[in-house]
Amino acid sequence: MYTVKLTIAYDGTGYSGWQIQKNGKTIQEEIEKAIEKVYGFRHRLLGASRTDAGVHAKGQVAHFKAKTKIPYKSIPKALNTFLPAAIVIKNAAYVKDDFHAQYQAKKKTYHYYILNEKNRDPFNERYAWRVHHDLDINLMRKEIKALLGEHDFKSFQARDKKERTSVRTIYAAKISGKRDICISLTGNGFLYNMVRNVVGTVVDIGRGYLPPDSMKNIIDAKDRTKAGPTAPPQGLVLINIKY
Amino acid sequence: MYTVKLTIAYDGTGYSGWQIQKNGKTIQEEIEKAIEKVYGFRHRLLGASRTDAGVHAKGQVAHFKAKTKIPYKSIPKALNTFLPAAIVIKNAAYVKDDFHAQYQAKKKTYHYYILNEKNRDPFNERYAWRVHHDLDINLMRKEIKALLGEHDFKSFQARDKKERTSVRTIYAAKISGKRDICISLTGNGFLYNMVRNVVGTVVDIGRGYLPPDSMKNIIDAKDRTKAGPTAPPQGLVLINIKY
Repeated sequence: MYTVKLTIAYDGTGYSGWQIQKNGKTIQEEIEKAIEKVYGFRHRLLGASRTDAGVHAKGQVAHFKAKTKIPYKSIPKALNTFLPAAIVIKNAAYVKDDFHAQYQAKKKTYHYYILNEKNRDPFNERYAWRVHHDLDINLMRKEIKALLGEHDFKSFQARDKKERTSVRTIYAAKISGKRDICISLTGNGFLYNMVRNVVGTVVDIGRGYLPPDSMKNIIDAKDRTKAGPTAPPQGLVLINIKY
Repeated sequence: MYTVKLTIAYDGTGYSGWQIQKNGKTIQEEIEKAIEKVYGFRHRLLGASRTDAGVHAKGQVAHFKAKTKIPYKSIPKALNTFLPAAIVIKNAAYVKDDFHAQYQAKKKTYHYYILNEKNRDPFNERYAWRVHHDLDINLMRKEIKALLGEHDFKSFQARDKKERTSVRTIYAAKISGKRDICISLTGNGFLYNMVRNVVGTVVDIGRGYLPPDSMKNIIDAKDRTKAGPTAPPQGLVLINIKY
């Protein structure tokens, strides 16, 4: 068996997320079907991040085990032939047999895009959350630093999906732009919905709905009810995963 | 009756163009239905440009005659409430009774976006034509100048849709960018498919498929078979219309 690592980009609009499920189109299933067309066998594809419905990726990583060896440079081309325009295999590589896209991921970076505009915009709302409130970007930029380092992020953990531990380490937390805002988070991992819960909270701070120092206090509280709402999926993009 | 001028933006993906037709969703129909919801009457909406299936607009102009007078600033908000996310009324104004969006248009500007990339890209192909050939942008920039001024553009006229006259005046023809290329054309009007036929020809020149001076020679030939293919719709955006 040959272990193949894929780097994948996708526009998650209209998909029910990464992971195969009974109802709804998923990214994992589309790629597994393409693998079946190319290799003649259905192989299980394991992704590093189970991105949610409507979430996008520029650098998702996944692996599968193939029975036949195709030149690695030909794999993206072959799979892309059978994939819809919304999903693109950017790169393929042969890796060691024990490689595991999910368990061996060391660092993940997500971007969350906000469009700070009063008026609707048909071209820019596909990949961004339009927030019509005035936002204090400098305050947001200052507050988000409280995420840096190792913390128990229970306050940003989805109530219905509990991981074994809610402790994660955040290496970078940056906000750039003014109207077109990008919130960039890099960590050793993220809880289910954590980035979107952080973004919902940062926006509540930026619009003056939560007092200064809220980010630090909310982390310390270890209580989901203290944090802001879950930001919508279409602003979230999985940028890359390091091993 | 009150004559209302609307400025409209839309993502034309998935629509069968501006003009109402028996089969398929159209922009005109969606807005007429919204007008009916707001005013209680179906009013005919006349657009300046009958953009084709899949073509986008940032500044389409249309007018209709209303029986009741709503404050002009409230019209976009009221209509947008009943419109899908892909269509946005940007602006509304009351104009003179004899205003006609199509007949009184003096200048139109279209942009055509090309993504000069070998590899597929799920995020940038919704509003651009991906061309994988190497393109000589400087040559394209030089050749496109042949369009400037008044000419008979029969060579760029769709064979199945003949206008009364194929003479048009082009005021500006510019190409900017390297990988993300924007071809900008401003004229007193454009024949059906003219911008896309010009773009298909300019790309044939840029990739070395047609010899230098082709643009001038093709215009002079007044023969559609001499020009290049029709570029696909998704790269085309109607930018604005001046009266």
